[in-house]
Amino acid sequence: MISVVILGAGNVATHLYKAFCKIDEVSVTQWYNRSLDAIRTFKNDVSITDDLAQLNEADVYILAVSDDAIKMLSTQLPFENRLVVHTSGAASLYDIDKKHKRGVFYPLQTFSKAAEIDFANVPICIEALESTDYHVLKKMAKALGSPTKKVNTDQRKVLHLAAVFVNNFTNQLYRVAHEITESEGAEFDLLKPLILETAKKVQNVSPYMAQTGPAKRNDKKTLRKHLKLIKNKHHTDIYNLLTTSIQQTHGRKKL
Amino acid sequence: MISVVILGAGNVATHLYKAFCKIDEVSVTQWYNRSLDAIRTFKNDVSITDDLAQLNEADVYILAVSDDAIKMLSTQLPFENRLVVHTSGAASLYDIDKKHKRGVFYPLQTFSKAAEIDFANVPICIEALESTDYHVLKKMAKALGSPTKKVNTDQRKVLHLAAVFVNNFTNQLYRVAHEITESEGAEFDLLKPLILETAKKVQNVSPYMAQTGPAKRNDKKTLRKHLKLIKNKHHTDIYNLLTTSIQQTHGRKKL
Repeated sequence: MISVVILGAGNVATHLYKAFCKIDEVSVTQWYNRSLDAIRTFKNDVSITDDLAQLNEADVYILAVSDDAIKMLSTQLPFENRLVVHTSGAASLYDIDKKHKRGVFYPLQTFSKAAEIDFANVPICIEALESTDYHVLKKMAKALGSPTKKVNTDQRKVLHLAAVFVNNFTNQLYRVAHEITESEGAEFDLLKPLILETAKKVQNVSPYMAQTGPAKRNDKKTLRKHLKLIKNKHHTDIYNLLTTSIQQTHGRKKL
Repeated sequence: MISVVILGAGNVATHLYKAFCKIDEVSVTQWYNRSLDAIRTFKNDVSITDDLAQLNEADVYILAVSDDAIKMLSTQLPFENRLVVHTSGAASLYDIDKKHKRGVFYPLQTFSKAAEIDFANVPICIEALESTDYHVLKKMAKALGSPTKKVNTDQRKVLHLAAVFVNNFTNQLYRVAHEITESEGAEFDLLKPLILETAKKVQNVSPYMAQTGPAKRNDKKTLRKHLKLIKNKHHTDIYNLLTTSIQQTHGRKKL
């Protein structure tokens, strides 16, 4: 049994807490947040506190807080030589005060308040300075049913950057499609099966192999028709840049 | 029973043929292609021909050919006043010769040779000049189990444009993420659950509401860190443009 104290009350903290509650191998013995309001609803299920001096002894302390808060919070912890990890994709392992055994437990997924998440679909990227610590973190992730991956700092940071492309930027393309369809009274909903199929395709085929469409075919007539249809300068910029990007990838000439 | 002749041998033609074979309400009585080689494998299941003069009489002729071929092929058809439709998102209904009853039967989905497709996930956008023709096309789509939508030409063209954003451009973002991760020896595979979750999220929530991340939060520190990590000028351009796009959507200042 691995005993865990969670610090923070955001989406990652809350989803981790709920997931740990469902399994036997990990026990959340305490939940800290600087304001109790955010976690008071759990007070009958777990010991909650807003006082760092009251923290229990535990095998792992998970700092699920904003990147900027990691350094200060880890310094303020009133103990040393225990395993303290953060959950950030972008923050350095060395942001954690050196008095601790340090690690990173980065769940590579998008968490929202509303949606339930199955940790089988949350790869956990693990970083640790000591092999024994790595194995504790790996055991913890495996208990959640998550795929795990040992990464170094550079790899983790690059995964976090790539996640912005496939999550935030992709979602913004959905948003642009929403604007474009609504502007003509067409239904964005009609695109939803295509959105899903596009994501499913690259589960088995590389994005390179999965590419289709007028940019890849260098179908100049359709490209021109599309550019004529777009009424928003900003959408035109995105259309041109991503068309060029596809053509560079697939060895076509520029527009 | 609706009798159908399919013309063309690309992905749309082939997937439509296979889907029609599975249902009772539609019968493909003939398959035409200018070269028999592409459809010869089906010769024991359906009458195949490369001779337009040999075309059977049928309720619907489906021109599942490239946009550029629609006009010429429809002109060459040796009959008139029968229902002839194309399957293109971008071509005009009026590309079909006016001697025919004209319509569009546009399946809004990505088709690939390898992947099986469930037509329940293929919205069919229908356009027709006559109400009776519209109802034949709708019946045909319903028989496939597809959602259907009556659209006008402007709506169809705008859906085709939006499809490029959510399919080709999104896939290119996956490709860029692939390049970024591989360049540091990180595994693109770790991003696959996130790719799927991002697509699932907007099935129920608008892309506007689904947005998260450093651009939306205007987290300048992370934005700077990311830009420092990117080694490819082209990836930098995409990062900057889509970050700006998110910030415009969510009322943040430019970078």
